[in-house]
Amino acid sequence: MTKYLITGFSGFVSRYFLEYLARKKRRASILGIDLHPPEFKANDFPGLAWKYEKIDLMEKKKVEDILWKFQPDYILHLASYSSVAFSWKNPTLSFQNNTNIFLNLLEAVRKLNLQSRILAVGSSDEYGNVTPDSLPLKEDSPLNPVSPYAVARVSQELLAKIYVEGFGLDIIRTRSFNHIGPGQREIFVVSSFARQMVELGKRRQSSGQITTGDTSIIRDFVDVRDVVRAYDLLFQRGRTGEIYNICRGKGCSLKEIIKTMAGIIKIKISTKVDPKLIRPSENQTIIGSNRKITKETGWQPEISLERSLKDILRYWQEK
Amino acid sequence: MTKYLITGFSGFVSRYFLEYLARKKRRASILGIDLHPPEFKANDFPGLAWKYEKIDLMEKKKVEDILWKFQPDYILHLASYSSVAFSWKNPTLSFQNNTNIFLNLLEAVRKLNLQSRILAVGSSDEYGNVTPDSLPLKEDSPLNPVSPYAVARVSQELLAKIYVEGFGLDIIRTRSFNHIGPGQREIFVVSSFARQMVELGKRRQSSGQITTGDTSIIRDFVDVRDVVRAYDLLFQRGRTGEIYNICRGKGCSLKEIIKTMAGIIKIKISTKVDPKLIRPSENQTIIGSNRKITKETGWQPEISLERSLKDILRYWQEK
Repeated sequence: MTKYLITGFSGFVSRYFLEYLARKKRRASILGIDLHPPEFKANDFPGLAWKYEKIDLMEKKKVEDILWKFQPDYILHLASYSSVAFSWKNPTLSFQNNTNIFLNLLEAVRKLNLQSRILAVGSSDEYGNVTPDSLPLKEDSPLNPVSPYAVARVSQELLAKIYVEGFGLDIIRTRSFNHIGPGQREIFVVSSFARQMVELGKRRQSSGQITTGDTSIIRDFVDVRDVVRAYDLLFQRGRTGEIYNICRGKGCSLKEIIKTMAGIIKIKISTKVDPKLIRPSENQTIIGSNRKITKETGWQPEISLERSLKDILRYWQEK
Repeated sequence: MTKYLITGFSGFVSRYFLEYLARKKRRASILGIDLHPPEFKANDFPGLAWKYEKIDLMEKKKVEDILWKFQPDYILHLASYSSVAFSWKNPTLSFQNNTNIFLNLLEAVRKLNLQSRILAVGSSDEYGNVTPDSLPLKEDSPLNPVSPYAVARVSQELLAKIYVEGFGLDIIRTRSFNHIGPGQREIFVVSSFARQMVELGKRRQSSGQITTGDTSIIRDFVDVRDVVRAYDLLFQRGRTGEIYNICRGKGCSLKEIIKTMAGIIKIKISTKVDPKLIRPSENQTIIGSNRKITKETGWQPEISLERSLKDILRYWQEK
């Protein structure tokens, strides 16, 4: 049995990782830790052995205890205050949590001399403000983070490197681009749009207005189901200390997302900008290159943007 | 009266900053904060009004209180766990302290809406492993930090940028290269060498051995008295949000430092490597370019390396 420890177990990405392992009939034993219990049930993932424990990653001692008991082969570190908006409202809390929980994890692995392979999930937000000629962004493109969240992610990435080179830990780092998919919380942009549209649909309106931030920004959206497959491939084939972009390799503006979803749901949508949703600093265009991960692991995105958006709309319709 | 708040008040650099202001007959009122009281006395700096308060920068509320009461024009943020060696032994503590105290300071300035100009002191260690063709290092050279301390410094720098661009704070950032000078603690390399040599001298030995780490590394050593002059000029003429190297612009190996000091003190010195002083990762050569600060503020280093070394040896002889 391969042992996986998953932090941020009750979040959006974790559930898809479990689904993936179950579908692949992987012989795996999974320990999930989070502050809150997951919403999924024991038999949601046929054939998979998993257990949840309530652990606050800020509590060093408890992190050490659980790692010592479980001795995972793989650690998927998903736990994060991952909202950029939250980080602007609570810069200190966002930064400290993101970096401190990661350090507690690494220190425990180091002190206990575990051989666990760790996947440190980072973000495309690390690239920050980029010039058009640097697109698509490659792993060696300069980092110019423009939000407290993004700075925390860069810090995590740099700390990971220290623990690889200075202490011999086996860490692989990702820069995961905007992932989307059914079940994502509505504090994230595509979910927010989808929910608003589905509500208009439920009122049987043929047209309506949704509230947005800046819809001109272009992002590289990748389906969460593709993302978790990339995480699994990186555990198998990634190289220690390396950084991998996980992205579709194509950009799409929020405007286009809205247009595509409006077409699927057959409602004429207009938008109204809520100034509260405009961030102090914002990156205009983020598009990544996935050449490195494709070359080294064979990974490629398989789910089209349209299929993602359809599935997201269906999720909100059924909820 | 210009009001200066100095963090890390009881440290090595702060005392020289006060000496500089006193020598310049600056009309200044200074509030110094630190965990420990300074060793200098009220009349060490004729004409200068200063006061010390014991404040732990980790205590958010107290930082806010003191900033609100004092309302400084300038904040010289010197407080730091600045030892690279310490950071390898206590990576978490070093990282968290360096970043958390800085965030507490910035959050207080932001919440209180103060107009203080802040000098965020960073380090040449941020550059980390560099290729020979990137020397001398310029402010836009890539950062590749290789110690927990250096990562904390990069994080501080990135956080500063967020607070400038996102919240409108007036912060200037430095990358201060290895400073040396009389009074520096012997956990720093040149002080350690000087003290060991002076002890051999006191025993009237004409030759002797000192303990070192890797003496082949090359650093850009700049005298602390030049450094504090740079800080003052940056307060006056630096541009908000910019980064400035503070360095001599020339490199010198530790071997050469030892040779020069041995010549001054007239003792034949051999060296013995203590493996405990070898770090997990080490930068071979660090030399900076000071073109930017020279161009924008007129600053140039004025104290020769030989004069610095003489003064440092005299300090240990008198101690």
